[in-house]
Amino acid sequence: MATGAGSEQFVTRARGARPKRIVLLGATGSIGRSTVDLLTRDPEGFSVAAIAGGRDHAALARTAIAVKAEFVAIRDEEGYAALKEALSGTNIQVAAGREAVIEAATREADLVVSAIVGAAGVEPTHAALALGRDVALANKECLVCAGAPFMRTARERSARLLPIDSEHNAIFQALGGEDVSKIETMTITASGGPFRTWTREAIEAATVEQALNHPNWAMGPKNTIDSATLMNKGLELIEAHHIFGVPAEKLDVIVHPQSIVHGLVSFSDGSVTAGLARPDMRVPIAHCLAYPERIETPAPRLDLVAIGALTFEKPDLERFPALGLALEAMRAGGGLPTVLNAANEIAVEAFLAGRIGFGGIARHVADALEAALEDGTAREPGSVEDALDIDHIVRERSRGALAMNRASGMLTLQ
Amino acid sequence: MATGAGSEQFVTRARGARPKRIVLLGATGSIGRSTVDLLTRDPEGFSVAAIAGGRDHAALARTAIAVKAEFVAIRDEEGYAALKEALSGTNIQVAAGREAVIEAATREADLVVSAIVGAAGVEPTHAALALGRDVALANKECLVCAGAPFMRTARERSARLLPIDSEHNAIFQALGGEDVSKIETMTITASGGPFRTWTREAIEAATVEQALNHPNWAMGPKNTIDSATLMNKGLELIEAHHIFGVPAEKLDVIVHPQSIVHGLVSFSDGSVTAGLARPDMRVPIAHCLAYPERIETPAPRLDLVAIGALTFEKPDLERFPALGLALEAMRAGGGLPTVLNAANEIAVEAFLAGRIGFGGIARHVADALEAALEDGTAREPGSVEDALDIDHIVRERSRGALAMNRASGMLTLQ
Repeated sequence: MATGAGSEQFVTRARGARPKRIVLLGATGSIGRSTVDLLTRDPEGFSVAAIAGGRDHAALARTAIAVKAEFVAIRDEEGYAALKEALSGTNIQVAAGREAVIEAATREADLVVSAIVGAAGVEPTHAALALGRDVALANKECLVCAGAPFMRTARERSARLLPIDSEHNAIFQALGGEDVSKIETMTITASGGPFRTWTREAIEAATVEQALNHPNWAMGPKNTIDSATLMNKGLELIEAHHIFGVPAEKLDVIVHPQSIVHGLVSFSDGSVTAGLARPDMRVPIAHCLAYPERIETPAPRLDLVAIGALTFEKPDLERFPALGLALEAMRAGGGLPTVLNAANEIAVEAFLAGRIGFGGIARHVADALEAALEDGTAREPGSVEDALDIDHIVRERSRGALAMNRASGMLTLQ
Repeated sequence: MATGAGSEQFVTRARGARPKRIVLLGATGSIGRSTVDLLTRDPEGFSVAAIAGGRDHAALARTAIAVKAEFVAIRDEEGYAALKEALSGTNIQVAAGREAVIEAATREADLVVSAIVGAAGVEPTHAALALGRDVALANKECLVCAGAPFMRTARERSARLLPIDSEHNAIFQALGGEDVSKIETMTITASGGPFRTWTREAIEAATVEQALNHPNWAMGPKNTIDSATLMNKGLELIEAHHIFGVPAEKLDVIVHPQSIVHGLVSFSDGSVTAGLARPDMRVPIAHCLAYPERIETPAPRLDLVAIGALTFEKPDLERFPALGLALEAMRAGGGLPTVLNAANEIAVEAFLAGRIGFGGIARHVADALEAALEDGTAREPGSVEDALDIDHIVRERSRGALAMNRASGMLTLQ
């Protein structure tokens, strides 16, 4: 009996004697904070080789102490002195700047959590992959902006990519290791956002406050606006296309307002498997941190009886033209997803700043895609650097176009 | 390019050059016919070592020719001459009787499909397992009547058990090879049957015709009545307990009238995976036949948007006492599931023959469990033979009790 109890304990801590070494890039953002929440609950399961953040030196110092990080990098060099000061008296090493973030990314580790938001996350994540590190990926740009070259590096270095996005994580779990060549369709769900039931005219004229009022998820403003245009689902399909290696024509989106079923995979025999969870990012983060084991989280458990009904609708590309643009960019491939993503990000900034209307986001993205096709900017990026160059060019161009829009916008959009 | 196309073809027929050798036990029943439908669609993928059936010699002869079986066994010796005659001029070997069915079960094969209905399926299926054959299991009695010793043989001989039941197959797919020790709960769904919304009094007085009117599945009369009492879900939980090795307290049932989600598994991190499909038995049968590959079936594909809503309710043990009895039998273990199953089968026969009312089924099972606990019949069966002995004793006793009931029933139940 004593032997039995002993062997059971071994099963619950099957990762072995050594804690799993984690690098956390983007430690002070939304995903970063949820990751820290899980890491600090299981100090025997995980050790933290390095963390990196952008500007918030105070939060970064608190986090470094909480997770007992060995090394901390702050991207903004102006924060260096304050971070160094806050960590004086600890053994934690401190460095600042772009190279410092890359150093954090490439420290010896079992898993790199890539949660830096935006294009700034691509270079350090790619550096980790190039060393063959396994990466838990929350940064969208790695796949949307630089998908093909990014995945090439992962394949060449046999680095494993684990998706943190709830949709891709659900699909990864639903696949259960089965070969992607056997699937008929791969479907992600969309909550439909705050404008799911609105008319096209009402959506066109939506205010920033209305667009930020997401029914199910608490996210940053950029992602919340992308959820309102449904552009986020287009970007996620492009991510799924790359991370799972699924042809564009097998990918689909359905609207599911309860946000419980996050992704589904269907097979040629008629079987379908699905990944479900309450909307809590700690669930997919914990799955990635522990994979292929599991850890316990305090996330609320799914109770389908309490929820009562799960409903499903077809997404309306008329009312949500941004999704249609993303589907076109994914199908056409080349550099179009890179252009789409960059133009969208600048358009969302312009909307949040009150410079264009809600309907102007998709119109700007459509214009940017057309311009890039005409002048060759939408060429297939040959490398991650090439993709980041296209991204940079499009952002600059979009900023210019939307600055001009501002002047006329004062007359036509208000 | 030519190389690429060639390697793709290899992927779609990855089973290799040799067709998979199948034994099909119960070839003329509902599961058997669906299996034959799939086998005849893929003659290059499968060859049939043997088939076995009960009484229907004409159907068995037609099936043997259709699947090009090498050997056919008919359980009923009276059918031998007619079967032999129908297959004269073919190379198909013919034999009859109990031993012949065991010979069919133990012919050299890659997979034995166990689809004989009732206790008659246990001995041949167990004989196949004892030789280490992989078994696709549709027969309920193997696990409900003789679960512990049956699974012991499978473990000892390293035989793989693949579940054909839609609920267990869905869970098997949802598990995706993950270790069962990591799960928090395992849930099967119930359609709720024809009496889902009926009052307790109306259910008590339900007629045979009403009970046979199942909303979603076309099944034999025994299974259809079990779906109306919800006893089928109790039997399925007992099966899940054995086939997946999950403790009784982690097993659950929820009512899901659309019968689309068939089973769910939840993990300690809050993730849930689910298996879904339209109600068509060819889906789980095809999954088992091809496992770990996949084959294409003509089964209708799942369209969640067309279905619109999936709803979930708590099962009501007050109105469906048979489910409560099964849960008690599963939790108590020992020989109680064996007693439950035998008593239920005789009670359902009595109901179908008009000898007891619908409410009498659960009352009879409760009486049988109590009697077996009192006199030691509910002892833990030490072997498959022992379990079949208990099964036999309980059936005889139930027949006796319900024959007596008949006389008084004429006065009180009509």
